[in-house]
Amino acid sequence: MKLKINRSEFAKAVAIAQRAISSRSTIQILEGFCLKAADNIVTLIASDTEITIKTQLSAIVDEGGDIVVNARLFGDIIRKFQGDTIDLSVNGTTMLLKCEQSTFTLQCQSTDEFPLLPSFEIDHDFTLEGHTLKEAIRKTSFAVSLDETRPVFTGVFMDLKNDGIHFVALDGFRMAFKTVDVTTEDGSAIIPARSLNELLKILGDEQVRVQLSKNMAMFSTDTTVLYTTLLSGDFFNYEALITKEYATEVEVDHRSFQASLERASLLAKEDRANLVKIEVSSDQLKISSNSEIGNVEELVPCTTIGKPVRIAFNSKYLLDGIKILESESLKLHLTDSVNPCIIREDDLSYLYLVLPVRLAEQG
Amino acid sequence: MKLKINRSEFAKAVAIAQRAISSRSTIQILEGFCLKAADNIVTLIASDTEITIKTQLSAIVDEGGDIVVNARLFGDIIRKFQGDTIDLSVNGTTMLLKCEQSTFTLQCQSTDEFPLLPSFEIDHDFTLEGHTLKEAIRKTSFAVSLDETRPVFTGVFMDLKNDGIHFVALDGFRMAFKTVDVTTEDGSAIIPARSLNELLKILGDEQVRVQLSKNMAMFSTDTTVLYTTLLSGDFFNYEALITKEYATEVEVDHRSFQASLERASLLAKEDRANLVKIEVSSDQLKISSNSEIGNVEELVPCTTIGKPVRIAFNSKYLLDGIKILESESLKLHLTDSVNPCIIREDDLSYLYLVLPVRLAEQG
Repeated sequence: MKLKINRSEFAKAVAIAQRAISSRSTIQILEGFCLKAADNIVTLIASDTEITIKTQLSAIVDEGGDIVVNARLFGDIIRKFQGDTIDLSVNGTTMLLKCEQSTFTLQCQSTDEFPLLPSFEIDHDFTLEGHTLKEAIRKTSFAVSLDETRPVFTGVFMDLKNDGIHFVALDGFRMAFKTVDVTTEDGSAIIPARSLNELLKILGDEQVRVQLSKNMAMFSTDTTVLYTTLLSGDFFNYEALITKEYATEVEVDHRSFQASLERASLLAKEDRANLVKIEVSSDQLKISSNSEIGNVEELVPCTTIGKPVRIAFNSKYLLDGIKILESESLKLHLTDSVNPCIIREDDLSYLYLVLPVRLAEQG
Repeated sequence: MKLKINRSEFAKAVAIAQRAISSRSTIQILEGFCLKAADNIVTLIASDTEITIKTQLSAIVDEGGDIVVNARLFGDIIRKFQGDTIDLSVNGTTMLLKCEQSTFTLQCQSTDEFPLLPSFEIDHDFTLEGHTLKEAIRKTSFAVSLDETRPVFTGVFMDLKNDGIHFVALDGFRMAFKTVDVTTEDGSAIIPARSLNELLKILGDEQVRVQLSKNMAMFSTDTTVLYTTLLSGDFFNYEALITKEYATEVEVDHRSFQASLERASLLAKEDRANLVKIEVSSDQLKISSNSEIGNVEELVPCTTIGKPVRIAFNSKYLLDGIKILESESLKLHLTDSVNPCIIREDDLSYLYLVLPVRLAEQG
């Protein structure tokens, strides 16, 4: 292998591929990038068995070839180089890297043991705008379960329906739901939240092609492909949770509500339950919390349609959802102290649902 | 106690006092601020027994008093408040905090068990510019020893001499030395590096009054006083290390030298020794390092006066000193492969000395 490559372009590609390198891999060869050169294209491949990333860029390739090089060290070196151009050549399993007055010689490995790229039969194939996919991930993936004993809920459910794709994440305490307007055939896939979070860091605003099979998903841009394994199992019947009926609608300023909840949770977090109580009256929300060290009471002006409600929440679950919203005012849909609260913003394609905490004293 | 206070000014004062709150205090009362109000002045005191900070600000005090309040929670609340003015009142050991539509009630403690401010006889009393003291701390405190079995070397030695104050830190591998031009009587103090690092975060550019006794130091600005215990014991005879003689002077561009060393240490750190070799010739430095995974060679142009030298260092110690320097070019004073390297910048009041690593193969 013998090539010349632009340093800053190469550093960007290396940073993308590095997202699939696990810091605690038990498979030695997967601590490395597979680096291939042919036809003036350099390809980097990295995998942690769950996620595989392939990214490509142009280079002046005088002699093709392939090699596996330690990803962390190689990445650090490329990032620390200062010139415009890097000369890279490989002789046997020895790599020579030159940039201005720096010369590195690195011992590498042959690609013989590096896993092949996943291959699979594609059942669904559609295209999304980068910013649309990023928003759907950002507004749902935080709500997945961290409980590894029920793995399906550590993923985001992509439900391909007539009215678009539903992105759904839930953990038994709250649910985040986003519809993306795209036409596909019916189907579904549960994508590990970790894979989506890495995808989020890689994506720009370019179009993303999504391909799904029974066990794998593939997200492709012009230069980069992320492959991820899927989670298998049945997802929760989330649609039953989304009721259109409610007794009380509260409209409240987003930032004031969030700031008051954040202050109230300073005390709520002193106890383990993170408990905040909310009393809705016709023109204000009273948020309160008690712990051994003290009490807090916050008043937030609001516009209420419907009957007064008293309800309690784990403040963490309420805040997680409110923090990622963007509109200036929020609408809360409430029924009573034991049914879920649904939070909506201006964009009606999104909703966040939180289950209340039942209080012994309530009656 | 009953007072009105500006929120953002109070938040700043709280952040300063919080620097003396230890996250792992075993003395329950020291998890709190002592808060005093009298004569339209609010005083906050915090202590971890080694460091004590007292800071003051104006307020409208309707009724004086004192109380101890949990520092972490109080700090979080003050920071999260959004209005201009905070109303604070204390009834017994219950504090009421109001800011706009937020009301907190906090259970507090009486000040009976809170330690008194240190009192001591002052042996030395002088004033330094804030930026001068900050520079002296920043350029020396990083070089102290982390070895708690020889506590004197975990501090910065302030040696009060005829030609000014010498700030000295050393750990057996390197020494940082800075002279500050101020007239005082002879004396000395060893100040814990941790205390100086907290002082660094508190100080602005205002003048600082320094008062020393046998066991304590006191650093005062208009609003804030930091008291610290001193380390007792004999410091090293550091002046014997600062030789004026050398065989070779190398002048090198600061940023190029640093970048090359940083790249070389990517390989050096793969082995535990962090070893980099430097070969000085008439017009270039060759920096090299080897590890099992590879080799690196860096060439840096330089201007050399004197004979060629081959020498090896732990790259961490070399880089620590070079990183904090400011001038565009550096001068290295070398004698041979076994004597220390002294690094100087334009400002001749500072020097950094690093001991070489002796190589078995050198002859």
